[in-house]
Amino acid sequence: MNFAIQPPETGILSSLQARLDGKTKPLGSLGRIEEIARTLGLIQQSVTPCIAHPEIIVFAGDHGAAKAGVSAYPQDVTWQMVANMLGGGAAINVFARQAGLALSVVDAGVARDLSDLPEQGIDDTRLIRAKIALGSANYLSEPALTAPQVEAAIAAGAALVRERAAAGCTAIGFGEMGIGNTASASLLTAALTQASLHDVIGRGTGLDDAGLARKHALLEKAWLRAGAPREPLTALSEFGGPEIAMMVGAFLAAAEAKIVIVVDGFIVTSALLVAAALHPAVLSYCVFAHSSAEPGHRIQLEHLGAAPLLEFGLRLGEGTGAALAFPLLATACAMLGEMASFESAGVSGKEG
Amino acid sequence: MNFAIQPPETGILSSLQARLDGKTKPLGSLGRIEEIARTLGLIQQSVTPCIAHPEIIVFAGDHGAAKAGVSAYPQDVTWQMVANMLGGGAAINVFARQAGLALSVVDAGVARDLSDLPEQGIDDTRLIRAKIALGSANYLSEPALTAPQVEAAIAAGAALVRERAAAGCTAIGFGEMGIGNTASASLLTAALTQASLHDVIGRGTGLDDAGLARKHALLEKAWLRAGAPREPLTALSEFGGPEIAMMVGAFLAAAEAKIVIVVDGFIVTSALLVAAALHPAVLSYCVFAHSSAEPGHRIQLEHLGAAPLLEFGLRLGEGTGAALAFPLLATACAMLGEMASFESAGVSGKEG
Repeated sequence: MNFAIQPPETGILSSLQARLDGKTKPLGSLGRIEEIARTLGLIQQSVTPCIAHPEIIVFAGDHGAAKAGVSAYPQDVTWQMVANMLGGGAAINVFARQAGLALSVVDAGVARDLSDLPEQGIDDTRLIRAKIALGSANYLSEPALTAPQVEAAIAAGAALVRERAAAGCTAIGFGEMGIGNTASASLLTAALTQASLHDVIGRGTGLDDAGLARKHALLEKAWLRAGAPREPLTALSEFGGPEIAMMVGAFLAAAEAKIVIVVDGFIVTSALLVAAALHPAVLSYCVFAHSSAEPGHRIQLEHLGAAPLLEFGLRLGEGTGAALAFPLLATACAMLGEMASFESAGVSGKEG
Repeated sequence: MNFAIQPPETGILSSLQARLDGKTKPLGSLGRIEEIARTLGLIQQSVTPCIAHPEIIVFAGDHGAAKAGVSAYPQDVTWQMVANMLGGGAAINVFARQAGLALSVVDAGVARDLSDLPEQGIDDTRLIRAKIALGSANYLSEPALTAPQVEAAIAAGAALVRERAAAGCTAIGFGEMGIGNTASASLLTAALTQASLHDVIGRGTGLDDAGLARKHALLEKAWLRAGAPREPLTALSEFGGPEIAMMVGAFLAAAEAKIVIVVDGFIVTSALLVAAALHPAVLSYCVFAHSSAEPGHRIQLEHLGAAPLLEFGLRLGEGTGAALAFPLLATACAMLGEMASFESAGVSGKEG
């Protein structure tokens, strides 16, 4: 678990700003598109950054606590949705296809043997077999993941990102699928921000009032059992799921390889809280795609000082929010690369 | 100027909602993507709406008042930017190309003979010659457009949209280019909303404090000269520019042909205020792309009850905000058309 993560050198910012300011537009008039351009230029240390071999990676895993009733859906939905993704029918298939993104689904720890599923699905969707367990243990009675499981998950997440870095990938959107993982994310968020557990629990994919009350009671119990941990790897072991732990390794390897990390919603950000607690410089490589409808996401974002690009009321996961942000990133790169300058186009500048 | 505009029949909404709710995702979990899907389905009266032959049309025109100092840029920038668009170097070229949109630039009334510019530019960008005047008159001393000019502009705008409707186009993003047209839009906004003129004047593309104070004084003078008009066609004649008047006709013809109107920023919305005052049903055909940094845009949006998709701090115009919204529209259509249902994918539904 050794990662060499450095924040980008900021020397290039003046050249980036000069290039932006020479374009045929009033200064700063492209708002957040200019901000994205600066972020990508900084990460890639280039005044003409590019999004090459972009991919959405969906990490799937199960949670022992799901059977205790922290989700509105049965645990089988996790593997069924992995199969749906390989069949091309999930929301993320549609979103990735529209944005021209490759799509991989990682079996980080689904509670079912997936050897009957194909390695390659519709539209070249890939299944990556990296199972570290048949789901996590139930954090109501014991730590969700053992220390060796956490280590294996981080190593596997890092390995698959390094493979993509070697193939020339410059941006990855991270998504997840796991029944019960909103609950796990709430516990991690309470552990790693100053927020109270109560404030970071929400309805997930659709609990009713009774279900929400039950979730509060169960998570309070898990929180007390674990002794309100604050240390990132301890919290990850106590409350994390296989998919969350694997994303931690993926983020750290992405930052190390200077790959742009496109952050999806509440669960993905809970993994980022762990990664950033270990290596704060990982945040320099992140673009926050959207602000989720789950209430704890706002608290995570405030903790990280992040302002997402989109606020679309999404609460699905799968990386759908990340996929929606990719065309905005591509446009920012094209703006830097292709737009004319006042000089080249013979357009007059500001008067006076 | 006869337009037969009907709001869409709402009978299809229950089928649309049933289709959305059958998709493999928690109810409502795609937030605004679902909202866009309903809007497009309603406009096209289909549970599988589609974006066919999408295009950005940029209306260019000049304003007599520009020479009085209501803009930070010289008037020549209008024609220079038309040339830049034909040369492929403007922001809207890059944005349209990224989103796979055709691009046309309309000479609605640029203050220069553009016969030396080609009909067809880089990347098939088209120049549409529809000049109704060499710019508007100066509203500081007289109405900006005569009644026959307003009529000619509306007819020309309608004609070019009808041509696109006949060719199968189902969605148009509207943009504009015209030095001084933020001032014109402010006057129209004061005329057609309950806001005070003072509150709807902003820095446009980049006035400094002295320039902003001068703009306030000049527009106050124009407002008083014209007698604070409230009737839409009178206000359009008093303060409009050729590009704004032509957009009014384009909007009305688009609504008549049930074409989706993708609304850009402050100036485009000022033309929409006129169109909606004439035919309120035009609003049923609009998708509001972004919330501009120009302060008056928020007032326009509140007046129209509109909540744009993006808030990106854009203040460039050219239809750049509209272009950014197209991938979101395409994703909403693909979601309705391509995503699996719980039944077709064999995924379990919610428990209990």
